[in-house]
Amino acid sequence: MIIVGGPAANGIDEKISKILKYDLVKVEHKIFPDGESYIRFPKSLENEEVAIVQSTYYPQDKHLIELFLMIETARDMGASKVSAIVPYLAYLRQDRRFKDGESLSIKTVLGILNDVGCDSLIVVEPHKIDALKYFNGEIKIIDPIPALAREIRKEVENPFVLAPDRGALNRAERLAKELNAPFTHIEKERDRTTGEVRIKELPTDNFTGKDVILIDDIISTGGTLELASITSYKLGAKKVIAAAAHTLLVNNALDRLKKAGVKDIIGTNSVKVEAEIKIADISDLIAVKL
Amino acid sequence: MIIVGGPAANGIDEKISKILKYDLVKVEHKIFPDGESYIRFPKSLENEEVAIVQSTYYPQDKHLIELFLMIETARDMGASKVSAIVPYLAYLRQDRRFKDGESLSIKTVLGILNDVGCDSLIVVEPHKIDALKYFNGEIKIIDPIPALAREIRKEVENPFVLAPDRGALNRAERLAKELNAPFTHIEKERDRTTGEVRIKELPTDNFTGKDVILIDDIISTGGTLELASITSYKLGAKKVIAAAAHTLLVNNALDRLKKAGVKDIIGTNSVKVEAEIKIADISDLIAVKL
Repeated sequence: MIIVGGPAANGIDEKISKILKYDLVKVEHKIFPDGESYIRFPKSLENEEVAIVQSTYYPQDKHLIELFLMIETARDMGASKVSAIVPYLAYLRQDRRFKDGESLSIKTVLGILNDVGCDSLIVVEPHKIDALKYFNGEIKIIDPIPALAREIRKEVENPFVLAPDRGALNRAERLAKELNAPFTHIEKERDRTTGEVRIKELPTDNFTGKDVILIDDIISTGGTLELASITSYKLGAKKVIAAAAHTLLVNNALDRLKKAGVKDIIGTNSVKVEAEIKIADISDLIAVKL
Repeated sequence: MIIVGGPAANGIDEKISKILKYDLVKVEHKIFPDGESYIRFPKSLENEEVAIVQSTYYPQDKHLIELFLMIETARDMGASKVSAIVPYLAYLRQDRRFKDGESLSIKTVLGILNDVGCDSLIVVEPHKIDALKYFNGEIKIIDPIPALAREIRKEVENPFVLAPDRGALNRAERLAKELNAPFTHIEKERDRTTGEVRIKELPTDNFTGKDVILIDDIISTGGTLELASITSYKLGAKKVIAAAAHTLLVNNALDRLKKAGVKDIIGTNSVKVEAEIKIADISDLIAVKL
């Protein structure tokens, strides 16, 4: 197998190739003055099994188009099998038509991956696993919790895992098991008139003296975790840290979380993060699945 | 038929709908804080023939993904036929593998248009018509020359049309016919060692007292037309203007052309142009093909 590093491989390509001792091919790429992407494989891929590493963090659409170009080109060059390692898969949250006439964006994205010739898809902590049904091929899901737990252990003494909403409960349970810690979640509800999300029920647990670890799949604007952090301190938490597979940290998320008392943020290298947060490497977790 | 205006319709959707008296549906769209596009059709498309207007100027990849989402969503909503009106189609210049291992990007883009459910494709002045062979469906090509000629006539008294290279010769011939003017071209060659492009042979025509109109399909960085303008003045031109279907004008193209003596630039509304140039409307030329 050949590991291919795309423009948004974020270093994971090199690490996997080193762990598995597989050949690494770095794709030649540039952006033309007008903004179009250029892609070239500098080596023959004929009759080779190829695993293309390309995440799809911001700018998502550019990284997606580059991924489509790489897969089809690898196919055209005679690769015998093409896997796409997409640590962060964009558009996974657009998995339902909340209103009539909305695009089911993840269906389109996964359909295109099929059509350009992707045989196998490897994704880290998808927002909803069910949304991957639109891909017709082999799917491998990477649980980033072991990598996050490695980093979290360095930061906490008396851990308590808190899911900021019901949707993150399963993640909290997995993390709590890794850390041998208790866990709970916040129950929220949406106001039917205003659409505002508020806390319906507080955890009954006492967080006094505890290092509370907030866990989610994605940190985007930070709104969900901001509320969870404030709540944790109200319940007596000693300190609060936040962990997520994909730390997008858009707008002023970092400031917002710091102000809400979040002492540390831990993410994985599934996305490229400019802010100074702690990064857990997921390359070994991907490598064992290849 | 329903005309659909996408996020990059650039006003052409409204003009076509007005000319043909067809219903216009404006797609609801926004960009989420993390950068993902959101698309929604606010009206039923069931059993309707739909023509989606979406150009793919910069940011090309975002506009392409939006186009893919719109086509598939229209299909999912039961549209009986989906046409894509893409006045400027990105990646058309990546139509050959100049080196082994390069992506044949236009093949991938056109293949995806097929796969998401596009029945018919309408494109204005493609860089090379031959590249459209990768689309399996109805193709309609819009010649923007009549629209450009309408604007050019306002600016010139004694026109002479000049193609800046052999590739633009056919365009020059079409424009010369519209303007009832003579035309010629510059013969260029590429230095085999340095890769530099230089003039091989100057036109033998005398441009004295003439308004020279440089014509090309795309003005990108302006390098090709810069050389042609300087050459025109050397051959006695009274003034030089430049016309093209797609005025991308990247980097400092506008300054560059002004400095080379180009008095006016005329483009079409196939792309959104921030610079103050003259815009020829192509909506009526598209409407007659629907």
